[in-house]
Amino acid sequence: MTRSAHYVGDRKMTVQDTDPVPPGPGEVRIDVAYTGICGTDLHVLHGAMDHRVRVPAVIGHEMSGRIAELGDGVEGHRVGDPVTVMPLDWCGECPACRAGHTHICHRLTFIGIDSTGSMQSSWTVPARVLVPLPEELPLDHAALIEPTAVAVHDVRRSRLTAGEHAVVIGAGPVGLLIGKVAQATGATVTVLELDPHRRAVAADLGLSVVDPTAVDVARQVLESTGGAGADVVFEVSGSAAGVRIATDLLAVRGRLVVVAIHPTPREVDLHRIFWRELEVLGVRVYQREDYAEAVWLVRSGRVPTSRLISRIVPIEDVGRAFAALEAGGDVKVLIDCGGVG
Amino acid sequence: MTRSAHYVGDRKMTVQDTDPVPPGPGEVRIDVAYTGICGTDLHVLHGAMDHRVRVPAVIGHEMSGRIAELGDGVEGHRVGDPVTVMPLDWCGECPACRAGHTHICHRLTFIGIDSTGSMQSSWTVPARVLVPLPEELPLDHAALIEPTAVAVHDVRRSRLTAGEHAVVIGAGPVGLLIGKVAQATGATVTVLELDPHRRAVAADLGLSVVDPTAVDVARQVLESTGGAGADVVFEVSGSAAGVRIATDLLAVRGRLVVVAIHPTPREVDLHRIFWRELEVLGVRVYQREDYAEAVWLVRSGRVPTSRLISRIVPIEDVGRAFAALEAGGDVKVLIDCGGVG
Ligand SMILES: [Zn+2]
Ligand SMILES: [Zn+2]
Ligand SMILES: [Zn+2]
Ligand SMILES: [Zn+2]
Repeated sequence: MTRSAHYVGDRKMTVQDTDPVPPGPGEVRIDVAYTGICGTDLHVLHGAMDHRVRVPAVIGHEMSGRIAELGDGVEGHRVGDPVTVMPLDWCGECPACRAGHTHICHRLTFIGIDSTGSMQSSWTVPARVLVPLPEELPLDHAALIEPTAVAVHDVRRSRLTAGEHAVVIGAGPVGLLIGKVAQATGATVTVLELDPHRRAVAADLGLSVVDPTAVDVARQVLESTGGAGADVVFEVSGSAAGVRIATDLLAVRGRLVVVAIHPTPREVDLHRIFWRELEVLGVRVYQREDYAEAVWLVRSGRVPTSRLISRIVPIEDVGRAFAALEAGGDVKVLIDCGGVG
Repeated sequence: MTRSAHYVGDRKMTVQDTDPVPPGPGEVRIDVAYTGICGTDLHVLHGAMDHRVRVPAVIGHEMSGRIAELGDGVEGHRVGDPVTVMPLDWCGECPACRAGHTHICHRLTFIGIDSTGSMQSSWTVPARVLVPLPEELPLDHAALIEPTAVAVHDVRRSRLTAGEHAVVIGAGPVGLLIGKVAQATGATVTVLELDPHRRAVAADLGLSVVDPTAVDVARQVLESTGGAGADVVFEVSGSAAGVRIATDLLAVRGRLVVVAIHPTPREVDLHRIFWRELEVLGVRVYQREDYAEAVWLVRSGRVPTSRLISRIVPIEDVGRAFAALEAGGDVKVLIDCGGVG
């Protein structure tokens, strides 16, 4: 029996028991241990993704588990192997795929939004999305590999190197992960965050964090960089103010990474971009190599996943888990999907 | 005797005769053949650069000439050598200079705006700004090497390669040069221009040019790129509409090069930048390697400088030359500075 959490529209989640889906050729069935709730899942609950989600929908894509069953023709995996997934499915034929940028395929299917997700005890997926995990990695930590891969992708696209200075605007889960991944490259990292609770979490993780309304950030960054400015700014706040401060902070040839989703066009200081030869870089999801590094960062403790998990809630209480996350204060909430003992 | 054109403020130019400036140690005196008038010079005339220009000011920086006199300690140059200059002077000490980005030095002196320029028959400059020219290159053509170096820098920063599709928004002198330099890389180039006269000039130069108000440019670019979109867009119009269309036209991982000066912040579609992993690249002036390539492009005829020169006006008629350029219709107007017989 599969126990699953369903988004049924109207801001509601229900829990149901259904039959497990047997894996077809090239598929595997996974016993799901944990599924993290991310900002996109909250958007789904709020109805903002109703154009993409077909209700009743099992959502969820930040997961860990063990292989329960192999479909015909699946090789290189065994029942019992610990896994997570890279929840992307691409067409292989569009101009983006042909150019090798499959992760931004024109017809990308994001598994867990555009198709059935992992917020259930048993989940059947194509074997090609599997990411094998080291046996010694606790499965609750492993549920954070997907968001860590997002951060790895963002940092990799920024070309941040040891000795450089990075600023992260916004200390939500993605901002915190970017901060830790950036630190792991050997860069100096400053996080900007308005919310005092989030600042406390960032500080607790060993990140240098400031309130941009209380401190002259531009001056502080100039002072700590010998007058140069920041090499990289990650805009993770999604705010107009974040975009404004980002270009102000950057050194000559600095890179502004647009991580957050800005639903409407933003005023951007193109004169500053010209004058300092800045770069603005769009970043979206991840690629295989980002997962490899994310697994290593989580396993080595450089990304302290255990301290990012605020609570673990049984799947029966999924509504409470979403409510807790909405209330603020939690960083990462995991659903215990019950598939792994 | 040096004959020189002076900007005296109040939208006025005067012509005066003065004594030549003898070259000090490390300097050379150049007999100036030609000086082109560029958009920045027009801005100076209009008073827009009065915060940087000290009147009466000899302006001008797109030049050619022959070395007339060597100051003490100048090596590697001979009297009579044909030269142009890279009109940049940097501090060597600021964070930009220390990072190797001397062309965007925090305290950059642009010679011909921040200091005395070449709109005179005899001009004394530091030997380090000299760019030697091939003897067989006509000196009127050579006056276009500086703006060609701008275009080379912009195309180089874009990483445009053979077989890619580039769109140039705006067919002023810089847009035309970018179009020709982009063609020389082996890219397919489409130019967008509202003005029918400028479109005719672009077409005459062998550029494919369209009126974006008459043609569905997005559709045309999609069709000619197999549904992918443009690899590179050069925004040379300085308009809000140019910025808007630029992000719409770009393929996944496409690069938007901000060439034009946008005096006020512009609305930019950051969602599209995220969704397609676009890059926005600021570009400013040029570096030594850009000059080397510009000399080669002009010498080889790949940049058809002779067809970009609309008229050559003696320095005595400098006022008329500026007026002609302001009236529109001309691409490049050269001042015959009279220094080379
Ligand atoms: Zn997520
Ligand atoms: Zn595709
Ligand atoms: Zn110029
Ligand atoms: Zn400098």
